[in-house]
This record gives sequence, structure tokens and C-alpha cells, in this order.
Amino acid sequence: MYNILVLMKINEETKAAFREAAGDNKITFVNYGINDPVPAEVSELLKDADIVIGQPEAGALKAAENIKWLQSRFSGVDNYLAPGVLGDDVIITSATGAYGQSVAEHIFAMMLGIMKKLPFYRDNQMNSLWNDEGAGMSPEGKKVLIIGTGDLGSNFAVFCKAFGAHTIGVRRDPSKGAEGIDEMHGMDEIDELIKTADVVVTLLPHSEEMKGFFNYERFMSMKKDAIFINAGRGPIVDSDGLNRALSEGQLFGAALDTTAPEPLPADHPLWKQPRAIITPHVAGGDHIENTIIKVSNIAIRNLKAYLAGEPMINRKR
Amino acid sequence: MYNILVLMKINEETKAAFREAAGDNKITFVNYGINDPVPAEVSELLKDADIVIGQPEAGALKAAENIKWLQSRFSGVDNYLAPGVLGDDVIITSATGAYGQSVAEHIFAMMLGIMKKLPFYRDNQMNSLWNDEGAGMSPEGKKVLIIGTGDLGSNFAVFCKAFGAHTIGVRRDPSKGAEGIDEMHGMDEIDELIKTADVVVTLLPHSEEMKGFFNYERFMSMKKDAIFINAGRGPIVDSDGLNRALSEGQLFGAALDTTAPEPLPADHPLWKQPRAIITPHVAGGDHIENTIIKVSNIAIRNLKAYLAGEPMINRKR
Repeated sequence: MYNILVLMKINEETKAAFREAAGDNKITFVNYGINDPVPAEVSELLKDADIVIGQPEAGALKAAENIKWLQSRFSGVDNYLAPGVLGDDVIITSATGAYGQSVAEHIFAMMLGIMKKLPFYRDNQMNSLWNDEGAGMSPEGKKVLIIGTGDLGSNFAVFCKAFGAHTIGVRRDPSKGAEGIDEMHGMDEIDELIKTADVVVTLLPHSEEMKGFFNYERFMSMKKDAIFINAGRGPIVDSDGLNRALSEGQLFGAALDTTAPEPLPADHPLWKQPRAIITPHVAGGDHIENTIIKVSNIAIRNLKAYLAGEPMINRKR
Repeated sequence: MYNILVLMKINEETKAAFREAAGDNKITFVNYGINDPVPAEVSELLKDADIVIGQPEAGALKAAENIKWLQSRFSGVDNYLAPGVLGDDVIITSATGAYGQSVAEHIFAMMLGIMKKLPFYRDNQMNSLWNDEGAGMSPEGKKVLIIGTGDLGSNFAVFCKAFGAHTIGVRRDPSKGAEGIDEMHGMDEIDELIKTADVVVTLLPHSEEMKGFFNYERFMSMKKDAIFINAGRGPIVDSDGLNRALSEGQLFGAALDTTAPEPLPADHPLWKQPRAIITPHVAGGDHIENTIIKVSNIAIRNLKAYLAGEPMINRKR
């Protein structure tokens, strides 16, 4: 008999699917969204939980003395893998694969918005100003460089192709293709590839070696009218370097859904760069209904596998 | 020997293609964009022109005493068809078919931007505010109602389908299908169809019978979280009715690229509706490079046909 605790906001239909997968085991749901306050009963419930599914705060897991497996609702699980958060024998699985659609839609909206100068038109609107801002861009025939071609990058590439763009992917192992990517290259080719791309999108997870990679010099090596987008992790971009390049007229526009530091401080000059658009790390999360359904499908599949003693997907430890 | 006058901004490659089509006839180019001032020599050149291709001002055509055929660079040619502008025996052809991609990209950018709450994030950015605006929308599985399924609507429908939407078209003759449209209906079904659509897009050309069709009552009959988009002609929307509906919390958002009156007066309350986005009739025009190439291809095809005495496309008179 396992004690299963599900900590995330799901509908009745999804709960029924969890219950079916749980079989005779005890399953408890605490329904709250990512940005909601954590309900008071969670800390008590964690004490007896064998299996935790969802979005527990890393700091609260100390109380989970019986935990054997954590299925995160997030794609990145660095906070749970950090030393001291969970015992070394606790299995950790992620929700990788659930966020590609949401993030890809968001960054496509940002890219196309920049191409059509919608941020400028919004600013004009707030000043009741009917003013043609001149030539925009079309994705058709443009070279879109996608750095990181997992779930997020591949979904984005498929959208780009529907609008006639040519997609160039970069991944650690370029011998592996990805859906939607026309040509794949290795990480060592990035410096050459960014010089000729019309759009550069980075979706890489955090790594110390890539910290500050997109600095002033690299922005200046891009095409003058290129578009830069970061929806991976903030620290890969040197925010001051990007601000300087934009101030000097470099780039058609830049879109950031993640920044370093995060949140971006209120006095950071990037906020007021007209050709930058900033969204507060909202491309993924629970911003579209479909995401939590995909997260749940991964968790239910893994729950069945765990209870049957079979291998789970997205295992991080 | 015909005297051919080309009045629009085109590159050298396109000029060469025009020259080839013109053969031994005299061809003169005056290179200026839609928003540029009309060069002084145009009025003199019009006097001797047999064929005019491009964007002459309707009022200036009185001087064109020899004109036999006008190939407009625009899709709508009402201003040229108006009484007294050109003799009844002057042939008029339009550039219908050249603007679908440009307009479809623009309205897709507006739709996806509203779904992802990008206008709100832009407003927050101008206040250096890092604030999650909550749930957005995905096009996937949504019912997109497209009123007017010619070049513009069909291009837009194809984009919507790439994002997983279900497309419902409305046209005068519903027995004719259109690329990208999942189901086609007649104009008499609009009132029923707008009640269940997640997105309502109107792309209709101007007609007196449709003036003010989208009024307060029709906006209130839509789903509370529907998105409304007008990129056809302004007068089909009652701007005050839309403003009132938005003020009462109706609609997830509205996007207008055309308004009535146009330009929208600086004191019109729609400017300051946070859930409305307004662009100043820029979806088409010469905002992407591809449009003028498509316009030129139509004009060159018609020039060859005219000179060979064969039927032309897009003939309006």
C-alpha cells in the first residue's frame, strides 16, 4: 500500500485517471496552481507520502521522510536534485515533454509580434497615435537558428516551417535529427551560424559553461536586423551586453521570457529598450490548459510503471 | 507602340522582368513607396500614358487622357471605379491575391499576441513591472470563424490549422471550398456561428449592407472569452458598440487593423481599451517584401496578356 500525494491543479476527469492508475493505493489530491499559496495541509500530508506528484516546494520536502519517488510537474528539476533536498535513493522524474507546445506558441507569438512591430503599435495605441511604423518582416524564407532542439525547439521549428522559414538546429549530438529541423549542427558551430541567421532562438537549460555566452560581441556578430529570443534559462544572456547592442542600433528586436537576474530589477535599462520585449517567465508554467493535461499524462504513465515495477520515463535520478 | 508607366517601388530584378514583358513598347518607372510623397514628374508622365501600373492617386488620373488600362497595385479598386475618375472604357485590374500572406501573418500575430497577453506584458514592461498575468490561450482545438474566405481568409486559415485550430469559413457561395477551411457556411448563418466561435475574424471588403453589422448586440452574443478581429474594412464594425462590450467585460480581446472612422480619432475610447489592440491599417500595404513581388507578378502576367490580346486576371471592369 502506497500513500500517493498529488499537488497540482487538475480537473475531475484527470483525477479519475489518477485514481484508476493508483488502483488500491491511497491517493490524495491538493488542488492548487503554480502561483497560488500552498495550502496549509500540504506540510502535514508530505510526512506520510510515499510518492509525491506535482509541485512541492523543495524546502518542504525535508518533512517527507517516507518519500520514495518524486514526479515533478516541471521540466527542470535542478532544485529537487540539489544536495540535501531529497535522499540519494529517492527517484526523481520530470515532466519533460509537457511544455513544448506552450513555450513554442509563446515564443512564436513574440517573434511574429516583433516582425510585425506590434510592440511599437501598442506603445502608439497608449498615446492614441495612428502612425505607420514602416516595413516589417515575414518569416517566409528566413533562416531561423534554434539552439536546443528538444521538445521546445522542435515544436517551435514546426511552427516556423508552417510559415515558410528555413530551420537550423543546434544540439550536443548533431547526428540526431529533430522534427521540424531542416539542418542540424553541433554546438561548436554556433559562432559561425549566428552570423547569418535572421532569427536566433536559445532554449538551452542552465549550464555553467554557457553562462553569459550571448554577450555584447556575439550580439554584434549577428545580422544588424536579426531577431534574438531567449526562452531557455536567463544566465545564458549577458543582459548588459544585450542592452548595449540594442542601444547601438544592433538587432531588429529581442524577446526575453527569462532574464538574469530574474525577476529583472525595476531599474534595469532593458525594460525601456523599445526593441526588446520582456515577459516574466510565463511561456510555460500553467498558462495553457493543455500543459497540465500533458503533465498528468506523463505522471499517470509513470505511476502505472512504478506500481508495476517497470521502467519510468523522464528519470533524472 | 504603347506608353507604359509603372508607379511603385520595385527592385532592379523586377524592373528587368517588366521590361522583358513590355517588349518594344516604351516603359517608364517612377520608384516610390505607398507612404512616400508622389514625385513631381508623375503628373506630367500620366498625360502620355496608355497603360498605368501601380498606385496613381485617383484624383491625378484626370490628366491621363490616353489611358486604356489601369493595373492597380491594390486589392480594392473602389476609388478607381468611382464615377468620373476614369472613362467607362478604361480597363481596371486589381492586385487581388498579392496581399493574403501579408495580412494573414499580421492578423495571426495579433491573434496569438492576444492569446499570450503580450499587449498586457508590453504595458507592464513600460512600467518595469515583472508580473504574471495568468492564464492565456492556445489556438489548439479552438473554433476559428473566418468571414470572407478569399485570398486573405484562406491564407489565415492555413496558419490556424498549423497550430491545431478548427477553421470555419463563411462566404457568399458556401458550395465553394477554400484551402485551409474545415467547414464552409453561407452568410445567413453568421448569427448562429458567432455564438460558439472562440475567434471571429472578418475580412470582408466594404459593402453598404454589412455596415455596422458587428454591433453591441452581436458582440454580446459571442462567447465571453472570444477574440474578435477585423482586418477587412472598418465600417463593418460599430466602434462604439465594440467599446461598450469591452467595457462590460465581454471578449478576451479584440484586434483592429481597420476602423471606422479611419484614422481612429485621438479621443476615441477604443484607443485606451486594454483588451483591444489597434494597428493603423498596416496588415497589407508594402510592409513585407514579398507583397510587391506578388503584385509585380500579377501585373507582368497581365501586361503580357494585354499586349497579346489575351484575357487578363483580376479584371474589375
